[in-house]
Amino acid sequence: MLTNVEHIGIAVRDITTSNDLFTKLLNVAPYKAETVAAEGVMTSFFRINQTKIELLEATSPDSPIAKFLEKKGEGIHHIAFEVENIETEMERLKNEGFTLLNEIPKRGADNKLVCFLHPKGTNGVLIELCQEIKE
Amino acid sequence: MLTNVEHIGIAVRDITTSNDLFTKLLNVAPYKAETVAAEGVMTSFFRINQTKIELLEATSPDSPIAKFLEKKGEGIHHIAFEVENIETEMERLKNEGFTLLNEIPKRGADNKLVCFLHPKGTNGVLIELCQEIKE
Repeated sequence: MLTNVEHIGIAVRDITTSNDLFTKLLNVAPYKAETVAAEGVMTSFFRINQTKIELLEATSPDSPIAKFLEKKGEGIHHIAFEVENIETEMERLKNEGFTLLNEIPKRGADNKLVCFLHPKGTNGVLIELCQEIKE
Repeated sequence: MLTNVEHIGIAVRDITTSNDLFTKLLNVAPYKAETVAAEGVMTSFFRINQTKIELLEATSPDSPIAKFLEKKGEGIHHIAFEVENIETEMERLKNEGFTLLNEIPKRGADNKLVCFLHPKGTNGVLIELCQEIKE
């Protein structure tokens, strides 16, 4: 079950400049910065009620964010839905014909297990499923 | 004050096909369809907790959605933030240096007064402010 729009990811060229811009826009400061080495990204998070805005800057030229910026420029990169059980949801979506970009949940930013769906099967929208890791 | 991610707008070529696709993806049916003649769009809405997913199909070749599809293809078109008072928020953002695409709030889908910000000033992200019309 998809329970919430957990966050919206936005690809930016310079996260320092964009942090200032989004602080003005959203009228709130980022509450967290985190580098996810495996994904080649630096992130920062703003919270608006139940949904976060995640800014993403690439840390290497072969990061997916670097490729996105090169192809499309700055802008909205993905929508992440919170799910109760990521394996169950991945199974359901696979059975519905969607293509998973990772067959096993992987560790994302912000203490989450994540899975992405191929945007070719979702009207060009990169969808992330995420489930909080409870430790 | 921005109080919530009210909805995420997604530009699609064929809203009937996309309604089926998003019903499978979100595991919920659209709760509303609405045509906004002034904007040249047909819309449908899905609800996930506090946030809606709005699909947008152009009804004429000079609709902003038709131009978006031509330039960028299907995908995420805008993020809409709910605001308590749209005039106050428009004034605040103007003073912060953002460019408003309409200087006076206009009537959008789903019983809202809306204002868009120019994406050139917001890292390529088209931002909508919206306030529920209370009658």
